[in-house]
Amino acid sequence: MALPSPIAWAPSGAVRILDQTLLPDQERYVDLSSVELVAEAICSLRVRGAPLIGIAAAMGVAMGAARESGAPAMGRGLERIRTMCARLGATRPTAVNLHSALARMERRAERAVGAGEDLREALLAEANAIWDEDRAMCARIGAVGADLLPDGALVLTHCNAGALATGGIGTALAPVYTLHDAGRKMAVIVDETRPLLQGSRLTAWELARAGVPYTLIADSMAASRLRRGDVTCVIVGADRIAANGDVANKVGTYGLALAARAHGVPFYVAAPTTTIDPATARGADIPIEERGAEEVAGWQGHSTAPAGVEVWNPAFDVTPAELVTAIVTDRGVVPPREIARAMD
Amino acid sequence: MALPSPIAWAPSGAVRILDQTLLPDQERYVDLSSVELVAEAICSLRVRGAPLIGIAAAMGVAMGAARESGAPAMGRGLERIRTMCARLGATRPTAVNLHSALARMERRAERAVGAGEDLREALLAEANAIWDEDRAMCARIGAVGADLLPDGALVLTHCNAGALATGGIGTALAPVYTLHDAGRKMAVIVDETRPLLQGSRLTAWELARAGVPYTLIADSMAASRLRRGDVTCVIVGADRIAANGDVANKVGTYGLALAARAHGVPFYVAAPTTTIDPATARGADIPIEERGAEEVAGWQGHSTAPAGVEVWNPAFDVTPAELVTAIVTDRGVVPPREIARAMD
Repeated sequence: MALPSPIAWAPSGAVRILDQTLLPDQERYVDLSSVELVAEAICSLRVRGAPLIGIAAAMGVAMGAARESGAPAMGRGLERIRTMCARLGATRPTAVNLHSALARMERRAERAVGAGEDLREALLAEANAIWDEDRAMCARIGAVGADLLPDGALVLTHCNAGALATGGIGTALAPVYTLHDAGRKMAVIVDETRPLLQGSRLTAWELARAGVPYTLIADSMAASRLRRGDVTCVIVGADRIAANGDVANKVGTYGLALAARAHGVPFYVAAPTTTIDPATARGADIPIEERGAEEVAGWQGHSTAPAGVEVWNPAFDVTPAELVTAIVTDRGVVPPREIARAMD
Repeated sequence: MALPSPIAWAPSGAVRILDQTLLPDQERYVDLSSVELVAEAICSLRVRGAPLIGIAAAMGVAMGAARESGAPAMGRGLERIRTMCARLGATRPTAVNLHSALARMERRAERAVGAGEDLREALLAEANAIWDEDRAMCARIGAVGADLLPDGALVLTHCNAGALATGGIGTALAPVYTLHDAGRKMAVIVDETRPLLQGSRLTAWELARAGVPYTLIADSMAASRLRRGDVTCVIVGADRIAANGDVANKVGTYGLALAARAHGVPFYVAAPTTTIDPATARGADIPIEERGAEEVAGWQGHSTAPAGVEVWNPAFDVTPAELVTAIVTDRGVVPPREIARAMD
């Protein structure tokens, strides 16, 4: 199985990313040599996916610390780290992994300064730990989720919650890859995921790479497909899971959950425990990013709507816990209402 | 109100259409001078919308009859008309208006031959009658549907069931135009309608022309928007309504109906009585056209998915009668289960 690696350390010490805005046409890797460039890459979705932007931001902070010229006084170093974390944290509001990874980097910096450790070594190790832990969590989600899928399963997914969204084999796609690797038959139905087509551009691309059979549909076809009766289950990722089990994920997830419920098809959310935010009581408290009109009104320079069109473009929606059959985490399969307890 | 006219007779006697595949970038009118060109224009969606393709096909037959060189023996003329109707009827399977308009042209041809009338005059008059009747039905749907909408209504619609889809002011959009013309405040939420973007390209364009305020969303955002609570009702058109009230319409309609039901938002289907097909017992009996992979896998020459991607691309779906609040017809507002009786 040849899964792409969407992030790496460049020999120069820069953060190397696969520019996901160029897929599937071009597989181009870009070295981001400053915190500002990492922030831009997160804002513009060159690097995206809730777990991956947490990793990218942590690596950005480690790189930023390493690139500070000379050896700054410890107190001043900490102040600079806080500025970097604030800049990176301001890029996208919805995914909690970004903010928790940055909070973790900041705490590690404080500890290092307090203990007189090498700040740069400490932050590099912390960023690599966040990445390694995510890779391990993906693998466990794969193992846990694989038990939910019968032989010959047809899994419907939305957006991209695969290798391109994480530091490992993905979240929603992890059970698929785990079973495929074990030689089990299965196939995936991929929602194209408007407006930015993470399904057709990214999920389709990485499934093709891995040799997993898949069929692409427009988002609006999912309800019909669920009615047809051949879909085993829906599995999606998450950008933030509230304490009550409500799930924020790519816009379109909520409508898909309603359609799955109408047809009695299990609706699973696969996410590492880092995606659970005990500080957010319910889905309504999750900030939903609204993005620019041009994402809906055009495609690669072609306008698809009249000039000056007014657009509503929320990047995420909230699926209430009662529509979620179970949350597949690295700590096991958890009913959504018990997700906060699963964190203990 | 400056609504576009998507069809006309050219001075040459050709069928003039507004090429809807070029909107909103170009407003280009094309004269179709043969039955084959009309058939191609219907297949390629240069002319589309259930009522409009019925009108276009009827006009195509009238033009075909007029262009037959010389004055053919009556029997041979009838045979040629049947060939034309078969060609035009083979273009698209789902919308019933196309097939009923062609059946009507064929019956008129038979009657003309039987009565020794001028076949060409008879068919021209019949095509114009189909067009005039559709225009009148649109106006009546507008008047009937206007009573359902309170002042300040926010109407969500899918695909294009406006002036561009009919011989008049549209079906789903007819109540909107009727009220807007009367100076009432209202606004429309427009689903972009993947894969061919009839919402963003066509509905947005004609609403802008008419000066009706609207907001464009991706199809996958509709459920979120319905949850927000500011949508008064959903109104969509129909390509065929079965005798039991099940409705075939542009793919995505079914998922939208499920979301409307989940939020207690009325879901109206607006259609002329010509869209009702008493010969089709239930929705499952309606043939659903499946179109090419390239419609989902690319946009205007840009690929949006890996090469060779497998695609499922049904152009329509079926919304069961129980999800439809009422059908707004030219004969009044009818509960879906009573639609067959409304035809009597």
